[in-house]
Amino acid sequence: MTDGAAELAKRFLGSGPAPTVDPAALVKRYLERIAAGNIEEVAALYAEDATVEDPVGGGKVHIGRQSIAEFYRAAENTQMVTELLQIRVGGRSAAFLFAVTIGAGEDRIRIEPIETMTFNGAGEIASMKAYWSPADITEV
Amino acid sequence: MTDGAAELAKRFLGSGPAPTVDPAALVKRYLERIAAGNIEEVAALYAEDATVEDPVGGGKVHIGRQSIAEFYRAAENTQMVTELLQIRVGGRSAAFLFAVTIGAGEDRIRIEPIETMTFNGAGEIASMKAYWSPADITEV
Repeated sequence: MTDGAAELAKRFLGSGPAPTVDPAALVKRYLERIAAGNIEEVAALYAEDATVEDPVGGGKVHIGRQSIAEFYRAAENTQMVTELLQIRVGGRSAAFLFAVTIGAGEDRIRIEPIETMTFNGAGEIASMKAYWSPADITEV
Repeated sequence: MTDGAAELAKRFLGSGPAPTVDPAALVKRYLERIAAGNIEEVAALYAEDATVEDPVGGGKVHIGRQSIAEFYRAAENTQMVTELLQIRVGGRSAAFLFAVTIGAGEDRIRIEPIETMTFNGAGEIASMKAYWSPADITEV
């Protein structure tokens, strides 16, 4: 980058504290566990007092690892394939676009949500929000 | 969609209240105003008590329309071109991936952030978070 471009970039950049966790690695692990299909192992990625809103605007926020595990039971007896498409990280947070293909018997749907996550200092998911709507579901 | 696929989709869908604002239209207007380059008109899209964190993890949250207008002054005397790449909406919220090309004199950079926004009932931006880091800047 030229000095001028670097100066220009600096006008828009913050200077927060160095992050103590690696959000990109934690998101990758989350998508791997979703695909592996073990609900307890997905729930174990969340902090004891974590919150999940999925979908955002769906009218329900799941609070606590127990409630979050219940939420993931919707995925029981399905086959999930996940693919990370885009990720942006900042501090202990990440926003990412991914594709999940969900199969049950003969049926198969694909959803491409944008999710945001914050992590605590131990690398547990402190909060998750999933942005998607029926318009983002395709039958495949 | 087959009945089976629709049933499968339903297992993952919420049933929140019908939204009273159109987040997709409001995001489009926001990106248009960024490109138009009038800082006051961008700030006017925000609620009086809105918050902005840009970039997330940058160590600063701008609170209130006045402080937000100051923040956008970094964009003064630049030429901005914006392009919406992906958007997901839910309730009064949106998450979107977009590209912004920023030019100043001979220099030109491109950033592709993911942003999230919540809107109040009047359609004003109540909160904005921009996820991006130096790794997402390219010189163009």
